[in-house]
Amino acid sequence: MHTPLCDQIGIEFPIFAFTHCRDVVVAVSKAGGFGVLGAVGFTPEQLEIELKWIDEHIGDHTYGVDIVIPNKYEGMDANLSADELAKMLQDMVPQEHLDFAKKILTDHGVPLTAEDNESTLQLLGWTEATATPQVEVALKHPKMTLIANALGTPPRDMIEHIHAEGRKVAALCGSPSQARKHADAGVDIIIAQGGEAGGHSGEVGSIVLWPQVVKEVAPVPVLAAGGIGSGQQIAAALALGAQGAWTGSQWLMVEEAENTPVQQAAYVKAGSRDTVRSRSFTGKPARMLRNDWTEAWENPDNPKPLGMPLQFMVSGIAVAATNKYPNESVDVAFNPVGQVVGQFEKVEKTSAVIERWVQEYLEATNTLNELNEAASV
Amino acid sequence: MHTPLCDQIGIEFPIFAFTHCRDVVVAVSKAGGFGVLGAVGFTPEQLEIELKWIDEHIGDHTYGVDIVIPNKYEGMDANLSADELAKMLQDMVPQEHLDFAKKILTDHGVPLTAEDNESTLQLLGWTEATATPQVEVALKHPKMTLIANALGTPPRDMIEHIHAEGRKVAALCGSPSQARKHADAGVDIIIAQGGEAGGHSGEVGSIVLWPQVVKEVAPVPVLAAGGIGSGQQIAAALALGAQGAWTGSQWLMVEEAENTPVQQAAYVKAGSRDTVRSRSFTGKPARMLRNDWTEAWENPDNPKPLGMPLQFMVSGIAVAATNKYPNESVDVAFNPVGQVVGQFEKVEKTSAVIERWVQEYLEATNTLNELNEAASV
Repeated sequence: MHTPLCDQIGIEFPIFAFTHCRDVVVAVSKAGGFGVLGAVGFTPEQLEIELKWIDEHIGDHTYGVDIVIPNKYEGMDANLSADELAKMLQDMVPQEHLDFAKKILTDHGVPLTAEDNESTLQLLGWTEATATPQVEVALKHPKMTLIANALGTPPRDMIEHIHAEGRKVAALCGSPSQARKHADAGVDIIIAQGGEAGGHSGEVGSIVLWPQVVKEVAPVPVLAAGGIGSGQQIAAALALGAQGAWTGSQWLMVEEAENTPVQQAAYVKAGSRDTVRSRSFTGKPARMLRNDWTEAWENPDNPKPLGMPLQFMVSGIAVAATNKYPNESVDVAFNPVGQVVGQFEKVEKTSAVIERWVQEYLEATNTLNELNEAASV
Repeated sequence: MHTPLCDQIGIEFPIFAFTHCRDVVVAVSKAGGFGVLGAVGFTPEQLEIELKWIDEHIGDHTYGVDIVIPNKYEGMDANLSADELAKMLQDMVPQEHLDFAKKILTDHGVPLTAEDNESTLQLLGWTEATATPQVEVALKHPKMTLIANALGTPPRDMIEHIHAEGRKVAALCGSPSQARKHADAGVDIIIAQGGEAGGHSGEVGSIVLWPQVVKEVAPVPVLAAGGIGSGQQIAAALALGAQGAWTGSQWLMVEEAENTPVQQAAYVKAGSRDTVRSRSFTGKPARMLRNDWTEAWENPDNPKPLGMPLQFMVSGIAVAATNKYPNESVDVAFNPVGQVVGQFEKVEKTSAVIERWVQEYLEATNTLNELNEAASV
């Protein structure tokens, strides 16, 4: 599965792994893939600590950082500093929404501490003002060779700045028109993410979206995302013209991940029909396991989810509880994952996943070859 | 792309083409694929005429018939004859819904005749009582070698009857659990249809669904459906373990199809995000082009779509108008189609589509081989 993009990036397999866990970034890159750290939840200071740790453990390998600068969000035109913007947005969160969020949690027996309450007002990296310092931190690390934007075309001056520092830019899209905007802005790698994907995604399925984006932006390389958790699925992506796979859900299910055993058990139990595209955590439709939290925000009698990034300021308390009180929060936890969750049977070592995918990929391409040979006899 | 299933069915390419047009059935089977006539809209007498025509034109080739016996529908437990059931269901349609349907059409300038009004009360083949006579008609035609059920596991005695007549049974599914029920009931070919598909479909994307169903029912052969309109997409399906492709949308866009030029122009214009899963025509979620009709039935201030088969008794008038008044009905037409509609650029000859797909399939498998060779150098 070695594609031209592998040589451009300097990796063995075109397997890009999005994860919030630095240990997974290191394990993937050391196994021949390319680890990408999701930065949205880190302050610049925390991100510096994470990247320093990665640098020290990843050897000669490289890695990426994923930021979130949405194309549209509350306060985007305010032209404020990060602190000013946070203050303005905090004041925009209705008390009704905070009260409702806390009620859902207390109704489910999730303890609420003063610290939890405070965490509801964190803005995190959901805006250009808060993502830009993350980019600055990332660019100080020479082994960090790719910055990806999860939700929109990165600002043109940011792209130029990253290029001037000798690094590449990637961006996710859910339609050919969005891919065209990315390519026109100078994005180096387009990630076409089908509606099957965990987290923020559109509605067009991978099998349809991938070849449309490949055709739209050729010769810009395209990574296929959404529904990839096996080597056969990577073979399908490459048959459709992608140069590699951008994957996320699988890395929740590796030994190196920080996800709790309760969360991983929920993923093993879930079928593909147990996920839902919900605005209840981030304010934009993101795929996750359906549970009492997502259902509560769907109910028309309850407060409607706010826009991005306001809703995450409300849901932050539930996100924190997912980690701090895994048993108590099992029915209201933040469990972002794609439809590929239906394939998950167990927690594996990261290196074992990469090896399995390579093997499955070869089996799939062998199957196609045998069919061609049988047909030509 | 010649799979073992091809030999079992006696075809060259594992391309199954669902269509409502007898000319397309003949053209596909003569080009090396397998045409399948959708029977739901035909009375048994009309179906006999269609199949006789196919028999006379298809030469030595074979074909299939697609029926609709849903797992759940209004009146399914009533145990009535077709005529009695139709009468009971006609009485269940609220006048409010009929009036609303007519208002949508007249508001858009679609002429309503006495004949149109009558057509709103047709039950068609949406029930076991009305599909069973269709099966009896089909089994009288020796070149008709496969009966597929579009919406559920066929009744066990029907499967036994079809087998006793020396024909095969296929059934569509949108989940591994439904596939398991099909296989346990003796269905010979399972069609795994992803949410990208036109017409009735579930929510799980093809790239995720196909391998799950293949694994669930092995060694029963699986056809991949949902999002296939190119040879690359067939290669992806075969890489994921399918033995062939079940396709529908593409055959709306061939010269042999009866679809109106207005309808085909709408398909060419549409992108993949212009489709919607709507209950507004059949009562169950089916993917189609979004337009004023689908939007009207989504509006919470308007009557809600009825269940199957009641809603189609209401929408029949719009379906008839799609064909009779293509220009007037352009914004309220029944345009079922999958997300693959975003790929359509022109109307082609059926034989040219098959040839193109075979060529594209070979290109895709060659691409994979070149990657493997490059990697092993």
